[in-house]
Amino acid sequence: MTAGTGANSGPELFVELDRSTRRPLRAQLEDGLREAVRSGRLAAHARLPATRALASDLGVSRRLVVDAYAQLLAEGYLVARRGAGTYVAEAAGAASVPAAEPAARSPSFDFFPGYPDLASFPRVPWLRAMREVLSVAPNLSLGYPDPRGAIELRRALAGHLRRVRGVVVDPQTIVVCSGAAQGLVLLARALQAPHIAMEDPGLPPHRAILAAHGARLSPLAVDAQGACVGELASIEARLGGVDAVFVTPAHQSPIGVALAPGRRAELLEWAGVAGGLVIEDDYDAEYRYDRAPLAALQGLAPDRVIYMGTVSKTLAPALRLGWLVLPPRLLEAVVEQKLLADHGCPTLDQLALARLLESGAYDRHLRQARRRYRARRDALLSAVERHLPDARVTGLAAGLHAIVQLASPVDGLALLRAAHRRSVGVYLLGYAYMQPRAVHEGLVLGYASLPESSIEEGISRLALALAECPPPPGCGQAARAGRTEHPAPVGRSPTNEEGAIAR
Amino acid sequence: MTAGTGANSGPELFVELDRSTRRPLRAQLEDGLREAVRSGRLAAHARLPATRALASDLGVSRRLVVDAYAQLLAEGYLVARRGAGTYVAEAAGAASVPAAEPAARSPSFDFFPGYPDLASFPRVPWLRAMREVLSVAPNLSLGYPDPRGAIELRRALAGHLRRVRGVVVDPQTIVVCSGAAQGLVLLARALQAPHIAMEDPGLPPHRAILAAHGARLSPLAVDAQGACVGELASIEARLGGVDAVFVTPAHQSPIGVALAPGRRAELLEWAGVAGGLVIEDDYDAEYRYDRAPLAALQGLAPDRVIYMGTVSKTLAPALRLGWLVLPPRLLEAVVEQKLLADHGCPTLDQLALARLLESGAYDRHLRQARRRYRARRDALLSAVERHLPDARVTGLAAGLHAIVQLASPVDGLALLRAAHRRSVGVYLLGYAYMQPRAVHEGLVLGYASLPESSIEEGISRLALALAECPPPPGCGQAARAGRTEHPAPVGRSPTNEEGAIAR
Repeated sequence: MTAGTGANSGPELFVELDRSTRRPLRAQLEDGLREAVRSGRLAAHARLPATRALASDLGVSRRLVVDAYAQLLAEGYLVARRGAGTYVAEAAGAASVPAAEPAARSPSFDFFPGYPDLASFPRVPWLRAMREVLSVAPNLSLGYPDPRGAIELRRALAGHLRRVRGVVVDPQTIVVCSGAAQGLVLLARALQAPHIAMEDPGLPPHRAILAAHGARLSPLAVDAQGACVGELASIEARLGGVDAVFVTPAHQSPIGVALAPGRRAELLEWAGVAGGLVIEDDYDAEYRYDRAPLAALQGLAPDRVIYMGTVSKTLAPALRLGWLVLPPRLLEAVVEQKLLADHGCPTLDQLALARLLESGAYDRHLRQARRRYRARRDALLSAVERHLPDARVTGLAAGLHAIVQLASPVDGLALLRAAHRRSVGVYLLGYAYMQPRAVHEGLVLGYASLPESSIEEGISRLALALAECPPPPGCGQAARAGRTEHPAPVGRSPTNEEGAIAR
Repeated sequence: MTAGTGANSGPELFVELDRSTRRPLRAQLEDGLREAVRSGRLAAHARLPATRALASDLGVSRRLVVDAYAQLLAEGYLVARRGAGTYVAEAAGAASVPAAEPAARSPSFDFFPGYPDLASFPRVPWLRAMREVLSVAPNLSLGYPDPRGAIELRRALAGHLRRVRGVVVDPQTIVVCSGAAQGLVLLARALQAPHIAMEDPGLPPHRAILAAHGARLSPLAVDAQGACVGELASIEARLGGVDAVFVTPAHQSPIGVALAPGRRAELLEWAGVAGGLVIEDDYDAEYRYDRAPLAALQGLAPDRVIYMGTVSKTLAPALRLGWLVLPPRLLEAVVEQKLLADHGCPTLDQLALARLLESGAYDRHLRQARRRYRARRDALLSAVERHLPDARVTGLAAGLHAIVQLASPVDGLALLRAAHRRSVGVYLLGYAYMQPRAVHEGLVLGYASLPESSIEEGISRLALALAECPPPPGCGQAARAGRTEHPAPVGRSPTNEEGAIAR
């Protein structure tokens, strides 16, 4: 599309005319146009406004604008194209703005664990939903949004979460937010500098967001049964009462275990006795492969559990849509924070998502995605078996990523560099700890966004990269103090159905 | 569209099967389905998943699911429709979720000053832009957004702002945010509890947002020349150094005057000498009717002025898109806050806006809107002349709202109630002060979203409402202490071209 194809329109242009000076308006207009070209405000090849439009904008006669254009044509600043308007001449403009920022080079085989398969985003259904929204949404829905979220979306989400995740929810207890990230902001602020026990390892950005908004964080260890809930008492004894516990019960992020039934009961008991809250991040529970899903913890204690979900793992992070399901007593404070944060999420996207949910397109997309991810998971497993026969793969029963436990520890930075040289992006489990580790045995590998052939190729390159990594300094023991144990021996317990999938 | 029309799909459903107990899986599935219906998780008329799909989800045989469905059909929980699947029976479901929240009754003649004409939102161009975006955007643009904003949008905005507003900007100094509201959040946090002198009157939500994110606010009076910049010295002497001054130079919000040239120079001089910042909220500068536009203040001192804009007054508040143009030294801190707030704005909307800007559709829309609003502004003026002959209308040279100065003060609450009874929404200038007033002479009336006939009818109703308002208690003097003067006598100064348009 080209600029200003409308007969009467053309681009807007600002030129200042000072009617209080003696300098004639035409001369002022010429000065202004020259300056606009010289400074690059009007770049080479930019189309000028139609003379009538500019005259009307500036409150001057059209003749005056025609004359000014003619002058600059004569001076070579402008060129006229027959029947197509007036343009800035090739050589006249200042150095224009750099055409593009250098794109961040991403590796060809990127096992980034945060992405679903972006190539399978349902572009056509999304556009269809948007078309329907734009054809039926009342004008008032284009005004300021409901800070809680569009009621259409909250209704659709409530139905979906009840049905699929066993969440106890009605549309009035949902707050739509800009991804789980903003959900954390709203909670940290609404709870007013809470003390939160967080699964460790966990997502560093989650910790950064909570801490930046006033939360105090204490690490809660994770083992093969999930979060070590039994440690809460000792945390409280040492560090003061805990207001909330942050967990990922369906598929621990990043270890990949499910929170064991006994731990679930224990956690809810803690919440009941201590009057504490549980923040359940259900980030990727839509994907489970080898067993029936575990219901959301929230269904067991909706007055104690804050449920958090997102489309970042089901549709695309770019949509920035997530939700909180809140105990009613927290609702008002969270909605107030949402109002103060940005007045509410963009409405059209919310209405489009509501349509996807209601039409069944969302469920269909999930079902297709699950098939695709299962195949990719299997590809990862066999590629590791083939190229890294001494490694162990765990956390594979669900989600979009797995843990690859190496046979012996490596120098993390050296590995990242060696992999990068081979255009492979890998992620270190050790970096997911509050006290990041320098020596690494565990890799977090996302497999959802890579086709099977790329997974195979990427792991074969990773094996080559590993082979050229020297053993880490002081090998054989954790290089950092603070934690004396290696990452939890995930998947070794025979009672844990998440583990032992791989060797 | 109906749910689950795909042959193989159907909705997702969560049922928990416990393989460690002795109760047969089929019985457990029947229990789960009954419970889902009774609890309302599966509402009356909801379609059940296809048997094959549910069997695959649960890891059981299809036969087992068919049998369980048959059992519940027999019990009356479910009904089968030939060739169309299995549904929850009419009477079986629990009380379902209330179908709708009662819609907030908005008045038929709502002079809300915050809205553009929502009815003229360019739905077709927006959809076209979205279609183009979805057909060409690379997959990676569906990942986590650039926290600064999509480069395509920043490039398009830089060109637009340079051209139309004289802003000194390149794509690297823009941060896209969720409306001006979030821009304020980011600034308050990046500047770390700044002391901000704010135009008073101003927008109460702006003040609430800044204060909630740590800013300390001092009122800066407004008169016919705009913000009383000369008061800054006394504010600093009394209340400590001012870090930033918040102004609306193009069209003071809500008074409607332009910041006079002398004041502009004075403000920039203060910023230069004191090392302070100016926050320029250019919220409605796209609309000016009787004179050429005033360039953005930012163009005169790009290293001292933070420029803030939004599509809320040009397209729709529901899009939640705004931008900051920042002095380079503030960029990193603001981007960090954006990352911590929500990782970035939704990408598809940003790309669609970039297309509107680049294709000329945005300029065309503005040009049409300006014509429409000029007619509505004229309608407001003549309606007030006709029905409230003793009132004075000011602030009309630009923007989407005007101030109606009543001939004598009224009890504000009584007026709001009387107007509301006649389905007229009016807004009190006195409420825009940091110390809200109880006695009111000024009304803030938005005219952009009402057709001419509604403006005429609304003002005639407003006149009737005014006629039945008793004079306020203690009439003739401001009812609150703290300010002894009436709102600034806008438009009386002969040097101010904003005023004196109306009587």
